[in-house]
Amino acid sequence: MAPLFSGEVPALFVAGDVQYRKLPVTIAQPIITLLTDFGLEDEYVGVMKGVILSINARANIVDITHNIARHRIRQAALVLKSSFPFFPQGSIHVVVVDPGVGGRRDIVCIKCRGHYFIAPNNGVLSLVVLEGHADKAFAVTNGLFFLEPMSNTFHGRDIFAPVAAHLSMGIDISRFGRPLSPEDIRKLDISVPSCPSRDRLEGEIVSVDHFGNLLTNIDLDTFRKFEADEGGADVVISVAGEQIRGVSGSYDAVPEGVPLAVFGSRNFLEISVNQGDAMAYFNARVGQGLTMTRKRRHESR
Amino acid sequence: MAPLFSGEVPALFVAGDVQYRKLPVTIAQPIITLLTDFGLEDEYVGVMKGVILSINARANIVDITHNIARHRIRQAALVLKSSFPFFPQGSIHVVVVDPGVGGRRDIVCIKCRGHYFIAPNNGVLSLVVLEGHADKAFAVTNGLFFLEPMSNTFHGRDIFAPVAAHLSMGIDISRFGRPLSPEDIRKLDISVPSCPSRDRLEGEIVSVDHFGNLLTNIDLDTFRKFEADEGGADVVISVAGEQIRGVSGSYDAVPEGVPLAVFGSRNFLEISVNQGDAMAYFNARVGQGLTMTRKRRHESR
Amino acid sequence: MAPLFSGEVPALFVAGDVQYRKLPVTIAQPIITLLTDFGLEDEYVGVMKGVILSINARANIVDITHNIARHRIRQAALVLKSSFPFFPQGSIHVVVVDPGVGGRRDIVCIKCRGHYFIAPNNGVLSLVVLEGHADKAFAVTNGLFFLEPMSNTFHGRDIFAPVAAHLSMGIDISRFGRPLSPEDIRKLDISVPSCPSRDRLEGEIVSVDHFGNLLTNIDLDTFRKFEADEGGADVVISVAGEQIRGVSGSYDAVPEGVPLAVFGSRNFLEISVNQGDAMAYFNARVGQGLTMTRKRRHESR
Repeated sequence: MAPLFSGEVPALFVAGDVQYRKLPVTIAQPIITLLTDFGLEDEYVGVMKGVILSINARANIVDITHNIARHRIRQAALVLKSSFPFFPQGSIHVVVVDPGVGGRRDIVCIKCRGHYFIAPNNGVLSLVVLEGHADKAFAVTNGLFFLEPMSNTFHGRDIFAPVAAHLSMGIDISRFGRPLSPEDIRKLDISVPSCPSRDRLEGEIVSVDHFGNLLTNIDLDTFRKFEADEGGADVVISVAGEQIRGVSGSYDAVPEGVPLAVFGSRNFLEISVNQGDAMAYFNARVGQGLTMTRKRRHESR
Repeated sequence: MAPLFSGEVPALFVAGDVQYRKLPVTIAQPIITLLTDFGLEDEYVGVMKGVILSINARANIVDITHNIARHRIRQAALVLKSSFPFFPQGSIHVVVVDPGVGGRRDIVCIKCRGHYFIAPNNGVLSLVVLEGHADKAFAVTNGLFFLEPMSNTFHGRDIFAPVAAHLSMGIDISRFGRPLSPEDIRKLDISVPSCPSRDRLEGEIVSVDHFGNLLTNIDLDTFRKFEADEGGADVVISVAGEQIRGVSGSYDAVPEGVPLAVFGSRNFLEISVNQGDAMAYFNARVGQGLTMTRKRRHESR
Repeated sequence: MAPLFSGEVPALFVAGDVQYRKLPVTIAQPIITLLTDFGLEDEYVGVMKGVILSINARANIVDITHNIARHRIRQAALVLKSSFPFFPQGSIHVVVVDPGVGGRRDIVCIKCRGHYFIAPNNGVLSLVVLEGHADKAFAVTNGLFFLEPMSNTFHGRDIFAPVAAHLSMGIDISRFGRPLSPEDIRKLDISVPSCPSRDRLEGEIVSVDHFGNLLTNIDLDTFRKFEADEGGADVVISVAGEQIRGVSGSYDAVPEGVPLAVFGSRNFLEISVNQGDAMAYFNARVGQGLTMTRKRRHESR
């Protein structure tokens, strides 16, 4: 099984005897996704949709989530990375997690891996551009495409939405502002697992989902190298003072209520509890470390 | 007034002098509804939509709710029963409340009452198939229609979404797997009201809504039989140590802040407080019993 | 810069060298927005969408928010006013914040400022009709357009949704019921800032958003008159025992964690904290007063 996020967009069209053409969605009904920390109590998200539909009535607007914790750029970067590849090529992904709204940060519009992204240049695109080079990158500066009059507090409405709508109408990306080079796209300092000795891998918890599953930064490739090295060794994962033996294939590999480690849908190691809540079980938090050690099968004890 | 859920889908097209043809929605823009316990914090719902739209760009995806309490199959079954009949015939209803993901439970795809349903075979379709016989039922086993590579933790993305999208493209239901008989669809043990004596009906609270209204399992048919039996008798409802006299026609039949019993929009008895919150008022919980007794008008006292 | 809400719908189509016709959205894919206090836990919102799509499969349904605090008509009125102008002319806005459901309150359908509105006549349209005269107003009484059988507890499903869907099909607004005059539309008693002396403006906090920003009732026009009166005077805002000097242009005009006053995206004064939460900072609540005073520059101390 090839890892999902190896720089290639996964093939969403099954092979075999079912045949159909890919619909020309970029023309018929372009997709615009929204990823914000606006929450769902206020009118903010609805207003962005109104602006988009006023410019392009055919846009198909899809919510990724609006419940990113306030100003949590890192969380938004992870969610974006885990969602955009499942949309059709040519989709436009709008990210408004933007603590610097109205300040000096740039808004950027990039094309990367066949998708478009509009986001503040604050690192939220780190995991998109790390995995592929941005083919095109522009600072969004052309006021021609902004809402007038423009506020300094709601660029989601006044800049992001109308620029996305214009892009979906076929306006060329180069019209939105001045060209940037790929290095101009700000990258977050992403934690990667370390390997202080041959038999020890150290990672950390980077996110917790709705079910209480603990997402770590240990990816499948790193794990496979670590595991394969000695062939047939068993791993033990230590987290919050407890030990989990081996990596399971699915939640029900252990009895109900028992913790397990599993490579989840994002292809990173997750700590879960079968039909339970791992965050509550371990009293865990984002940033907490975990270690994976190898026990050689031939060792005594 | 005929009860809404008597095995017939309600007529959504008003009679009278307004005439229009039913649009061929199953072809033009097929509806796919989503009902999950995924919450709205993560990318999970957005990713399912991306997969669907990558296969069928014309799908019209409608959220029922994603806030089913984690793994609460019974609640999902009630919500599904109360929502699907209001969608056009031919709609595809995807239910992912699936504590057994990656384990041995089947995923089923059925046609019933003119609608399609894709769900884990864990009882969540109980209230759909109880009210009508499934015309067609299949275990979803044909990997041709799954996302590749497939995870063991997110079948919503890897199986439910692509199968729903293919179904909406016109792929025949029989292609998704092996045929099942209607008895193979798992039923929940649904609590029904009991009638220990001629003048006493015992039910229970099965759900609480956003407004704090307490939904019971006493349906309109059962109530009518109970009420009509002696003609002209009055009922008293006892719940959490309090008594409510009679069944009201609407919330404002009692003063503000006063509790009442009313047959709600789902045609089940609900305990409410006019402009208030019955759950808080009664300190009630799901599973709690209530009784309805008949007072004969001719009795002394 | 002209204020956004001066009785004119803002121009959403940028001027300059980009030219495109406004799409005939009222015919191709009419927009129906939903604004309710239903929450997102139950099936209520999904059911309304099912009813609409059963009548008009081409309707483009957009959520404004469903998280209006239960029965908070005033909050809904503010959210409606801040959102509807950003949708295309001809859009249909459905508001179901309706504590009087099933009682004697009317449901009204009005045309105002090029948009349609369907709402209970409980004041929720106050800020729409205050800013423009309703061109047309009708009490929704024609049962021909209601769902049959009709409940007394869920008019969102049984009246609001089917009436909106029929309106979006091109049914003339006059067919839904008896004509009303503009004075029949109920207005809320909206608090306006007062000016007890030439150098003092008194307002109040009317709403708090997801970020903890405190929305006040001091609008840009009132502020400009107050500020301009003496030319070059400085203002000081007193709120919850603290003083804020001047009105900033954007959040980052002050250091992180410092409070500021800013005219937000709704063109009302907001009290915020740069990258913080003003509600928590000030321990503020809706209804709390604030004052703005003018300090003359030439005064000694």
